[in-house]
Amino acid sequence: MKSRTTGAAVVLACVLLAQGTAFANEPIQPVKPARNIDLGLAELGKKLYFDPRLSRSGFISCNSCHNLSMGGTDNIPTSIGHKWQQGPINAPTVLNSSLNIAQFWDGRAADLQEQAAGPIANPKEMAFTHRLTIDVLASIPGYAREFKQVFASDEITIDEVTAAIAEFEKTLVTPNSRFDRWLLGDTNALSAQELAGYTLFKESGCIACHNGEAVGGNSYQKMGVVAPYQAAVDAEGRSAVTGKDSDRFSFKVPTLRNVELTYPYFHDGAANTLGEAVDIMGRLQLGRTFDAGQNASIVAFLKTLTGEQPRLLLPILPPSVDTTPRPVPFD
Amino acid sequence: MKSRTTGAAVVLACVLLAQGTAFANEPIQPVKPARNIDLGLAELGKKLYFDPRLSRSGFISCNSCHNLSMGGTDNIPTSIGHKWQQGPINAPTVLNSSLNIAQFWDGRAADLQEQAAGPIANPKEMAFTHRLTIDVLASIPGYAREFKQVFASDEITIDEVTAAIAEFEKTLVTPNSRFDRWLLGDTNALSAQELAGYTLFKESGCIACHNGEAVGGNSYQKMGVVAPYQAAVDAEGRSAVTGKDSDRFSFKVPTLRNVELTYPYFHDGAANTLGEAVDIMGRLQLGRTFDAGQNASIVAFLKTLTGEQPRLLLPILPPSVDTTPRPVPFD
Repeated sequence: MKSRTTGAAVVLACVLLAQGTAFANEPIQPVKPARNIDLGLAELGKKLYFDPRLSRSGFISCNSCHNLSMGGTDNIPTSIGHKWQQGPINAPTVLNSSLNIAQFWDGRAADLQEQAAGPIANPKEMAFTHRLTIDVLASIPGYAREFKQVFASDEITIDEVTAAIAEFEKTLVTPNSRFDRWLLGDTNALSAQELAGYTLFKESGCIACHNGEAVGGNSYQKMGVVAPYQAAVDAEGRSAVTGKDSDRFSFKVPTLRNVELTYPYFHDGAANTLGEAVDIMGRLQLGRTFDAGQNASIVAFLKTLTGEQPRLLLPILPPSVDTTPRPVPFD
Repeated sequence: MKSRTTGAAVVLACVLLAQGTAFANEPIQPVKPARNIDLGLAELGKKLYFDPRLSRSGFISCNSCHNLSMGGTDNIPTSIGHKWQQGPINAPTVLNSSLNIAQFWDGRAADLQEQAAGPIANPKEMAFTHRLTIDVLASIPGYAREFKQVFASDEITIDEVTAAIAEFEKTLVTPNSRFDRWLLGDTNALSAQELAGYTLFKESGCIACHNGEAVGGNSYQKMGVVAPYQAAVDAEGRSAVTGKDSDRFSFKVPTLRNVELTYPYFHDGAANTLGEAVDIMGRLQLGRTFDAGQNASIVAFLKTLTGEQPRLLLPILPPSVDTTPRPVPFD
């Protein structure tokens, strides 16, 4: 029995080694399932993520603009905020956002927890305050109990709120795309056109910025290298954080994971289709015009990056009680 | 073996009979689980229910105002529509709405399918058109396939869209509340205070309008019988449908199922708490002032009407493609 187990282990090791070689030399790595997740914290965070009582109006939740039915985005160029204010920039996908080097297009938040605190208190987005968020949550017995269970403390803090949201967001990875299955050794997972698109994606230089597990998300790059980009929004980019003029119009390279679902594209949401986005990237970033067939191949490759979407039970939110501060949708 | 089966059947029949007597003489009947559901149609309807592409902005879905995380309502007095327009009336819960005699507060839609067509094309709500809804859905391969599978037709119609939404809504019943468990024979399901509240609810006359499976939803009644109601909104009520002056300020009696979750109350959403709603109903409809203890008992009873909320997997919506008409969030 022991020798059989050892034998099986050796076979398994060989399989893993063989699989390892399938992507060891590729500049893109498969998305790994989420690990080290605190399930109680994530479940609380999921409720908070879907709860519009984190907004002044009682109408806007995290999921309003990072909609998990729609690739973790809102699929409009710039988001709708409190009182229908127009957002200044395209809402990036929350999917695989734990893989980003930092959060927001300009990287001004170091991590998911810091990011989560922003929109709640932004007067153009959820237009609430951290103080009122705590007052609302602490008044709701269902939340008070769950925070106590998770944090073993009687007092709710904004850091706990954002830690819970961030933990939930860490679960929102999308493994097992067709491309990842190919990386992991399933040679039938991609068509000849898709493979040709991937080869062109590498050879033409797209891969220089769009690489790694997230196929992006790991560097800041200037939008408009070869020729300037005429943006539809005013965002100055990374220079807003660093203060360096050389970082002007530099943005975090977006992940291309699930890019089929996260239209429209770019920080201004100005590119409606993948074909348009590939064309603009080729000309402005690489000084290269892809012909129709090349463009179609790259687009075909990009669509293989759609992973398994998180399967989520819609949370049932604990009801407000008589003492809960009420939303102010109109004033 | 045969005699044992027969014996078991007799015992089961007796149990059912005994359970039957538990609520046979009660004016409220337990909520029955949904029956005769076309699962393919309901699954398609669920996607449509959660899809904001049924609105001009791409931001508002059925679930925005009838939020299934929040008792099938938006928990604000009147809803937020396209461009943050203020709705004219409180959004009623979608939960158990299949049990209503008609839909909308004034009953102007005969059934759920007719209701579903309204908000999509209402310029103050989703502000879309039925024609554009069809154009969007027909352009999306994932929807085109699913409509074809469900309806065995190549053409998508608005009647198919609303039939699917209505079928999904038929699944949104909430059986197994504590009150229903009591009705079904679990004598420990209610506390003494809750039972006293139910007795008072019956004896004081609330039950005259709030009865049946939905504890309401089955008649139109004047709001303000003993004394006039000063409404916060302009709605004239049932007379808008019948043209009869005697129907002025007559509204469909709302269901009290899940009323703990569906605050604020009344057609104008002006009552923030159940205690306030019970007080106003007592004085204006019954000419009776409940003292604090009586009010608390009735409220305690009402909270036993919270049933099992639908457990739903968040749908993953099929993505738009290059030819899909894009939302117009700002113009």
